[in-house]
Amino acid sequence: MLVDPWSSTTIENYEHVFKKFGLKRFPKKFCKELKHYLFERGIVVAHRDFDKIMHRIKSKKEFINMTGIASSGMLHFGHKVDIDLFKFFKSKKARNYFAVCDIDAYVSRPDSVVGSLEKAKEFALENIKDLLALGLDEQDVYVQSNKETRYYEFAFELSKKITRSTFEAIYGHIDLGKISANLLQYADILHPQLPEFEGKMPSITGIGLEQDPHARATRDIAARLPYNLEMPSFIYFRHQSGLLEGTKMSASKKETAIFLSEKPETAKRKILNAFTGGRATANEQRKKGGKPEMCKVFEFLLFHYPDTKKIDKIFKDCKSGKWLCGECKNFLIEFVQDFLEEHNARRSRFEKTAKRIMGY
Amino acid sequence: MLVDPWSSTTIENYEHVFKKFGLKRFPKKFCKELKHYLFERGIVVAHRDFDKIMHRIKSKKEFINMTGIASSGMLHFGHKVDIDLFKFFKSKKARNYFAVCDIDAYVSRPDSVVGSLEKAKEFALENIKDLLALGLDEQDVYVQSNKETRYYEFAFELSKKITRSTFEAIYGHIDLGKISANLLQYADILHPQLPEFEGKMPSITGIGLEQDPHARATRDIAARLPYNLEMPSFIYFRHQSGLLEGTKMSASKKETAIFLSEKPETAKRKILNAFTGGRATANEQRKKGGKPEMCKVFEFLLFHYPDTKKIDKIFKDCKSGKWLCGECKNFLIEFVQDFLEEHNARRSRFEKTAKRIMGY
Repeated sequence: MLVDPWSSTTIENYEHVFKKFGLKRFPKKFCKELKHYLFERGIVVAHRDFDKIMHRIKSKKEFINMTGIASSGMLHFGHKVDIDLFKFFKSKKARNYFAVCDIDAYVSRPDSVVGSLEKAKEFALENIKDLLALGLDEQDVYVQSNKETRYYEFAFELSKKITRSTFEAIYGHIDLGKISANLLQYADILHPQLPEFEGKMPSITGIGLEQDPHARATRDIAARLPYNLEMPSFIYFRHQSGLLEGTKMSASKKETAIFLSEKPETAKRKILNAFTGGRATANEQRKKGGKPEMCKVFEFLLFHYPDTKKIDKIFKDCKSGKWLCGECKNFLIEFVQDFLEEHNARRSRFEKTAKRIMGY
Repeated sequence: MLVDPWSSTTIENYEHVFKKFGLKRFPKKFCKELKHYLFERGIVVAHRDFDKIMHRIKSKKEFINMTGIASSGMLHFGHKVDIDLFKFFKSKKARNYFAVCDIDAYVSRPDSVVGSLEKAKEFALENIKDLLALGLDEQDVYVQSNKETRYYEFAFELSKKITRSTFEAIYGHIDLGKISANLLQYADILHPQLPEFEGKMPSITGIGLEQDPHARATRDIAARLPYNLEMPSFIYFRHQSGLLEGTKMSASKKETAIFLSEKPETAKRKILNAFTGGRATANEQRKKGGKPEMCKVFEFLLFHYPDTKKIDKIFKDCKSGKWLCGECKNFLIEFVQDFLEEHNARRSRFEKTAKRIMGY
């Protein structure tokens, strides 16, 4: 199976996936209208039913802005796109639900990653500090382990609406922890539409392409539930590589990712070790130009550097051999170190609010 | 599989089951010491680790008294033994947890029995009125859908401690609803021992023999959880037949059971239709005597009539041909009708308390 939400396999052939599972390529028209770097730079590549959300945004009507992260480690730049997208929708007329999934993290991850629920909660507290430091408000964020009874009841309730064979067909090998994690994820995405929360309303969730099986299962269940729910919409991020060759940005492989709470010195070391699209020698590169398409440093800038014009310039100057890997790495190091210093100063101020969200 | 918690198959060969699954026959010594009809009359037939509870009772120490019913219909006399046993332990120094399992009932029962969570909650409200009318106090009873967040978190948490293959080996065919129902059942039995509730303490739960797979799974999980739990103890009721030949007392087959909220007239009709151990003619019966061992009217008296001496006398007089089926049925009708009148008068007083337990 190409799209497996439990693996870290990179997905090369987008078109194949789109066709097989009925995803739609994200329209260029929307990209222009939305005026946000995630759309402008093709980081959002596909969607299901985004038209409904686009209509809501244009007509300044409310919609549900829902996303989540599993608290199975510290947050890194790989998570930042989710948060940035969430912030973008928050700036529209959205009802915001950012789930920090601690129970999910514990039950779905191996003990070597999250050995206890306590550990998942420790990560959750740290993750929440990052979210608040990035500009989310206290009322935007919830943690699974401190949710209302109705949410849990709903997670169990919807287990009646998915058969085992459907579940196996979607996910392949299953175990009970993963079943639990999935039930919670379905509840995370759908519960904002229950009468006890916002009621029926279009909802949007940004996910990685490899998470599409979850999206399909969630939509399947939404249609079976007796609550007359709006079919949830999804948009899909293209794959974000890790800093090393052939890797995904992953909390469990620390050299592939820069953490949001990372020390500036270690971030520098990681960037210096990053895989680039450079040539064997500086001379050769000046002559032939670099290969930004395969460069992890360029990809990092593409996903995170705020100024799109500057990125265009870097791409051009790299191709022409004018801008070499050393300069480029130093440029990224400076950007990242500035970000980390500011972020770390901000996040230390949110200890108290984060604890309140955890229910401590 | 002989012991299948999802079937209504009657279990004939107790010894075989005991041997296969490591149950212990309930000791006669305990029966004498406990001085309660459920023990005196051999209605409790087996146990796992009851010695611990016996020790607690004798030394007047606390223990957890935990049982539950699925709110998949109205309560009938088949449930009364569970409630009577619970009341008996409540009269000792017990911490009481009577679970009314509405989410469980919805997710594990077919739609034809419990078509919605709302329906399960309607049954739960009615069931709670019965429990209160039978002498349980408000603080003894909880409903799954109105439990603390920690309980739900725990139900998901323990899903990590049972593998799919263990689950399948125990239960045979599984579906997601039944997995959910089981997770909640494990949580029901084990959560009272969490630090947030009573802390580590021996616990006792009375179940039917056919429920033993649940007991084994629960003990298996208890040993794997990181909370240093006391292994939960169980005692097992012998099978209670329905009023008709070869049936189990079941809410879904209304003629097999007398409901606790039944009208006295329909109870009378059901008893008159009950399968007895009588002979073809009254004359033959006077000569040869009846067969109380196979008589559903006698079994009903054995399980529910309070005076053990009277039951002994009925058994003897039936065997000798002195006490005929007509007299016996009238005797049972009078007993049941008196009970129902009193119970129905009592239960109508608990509407408000029952709603409070439901969280309404």
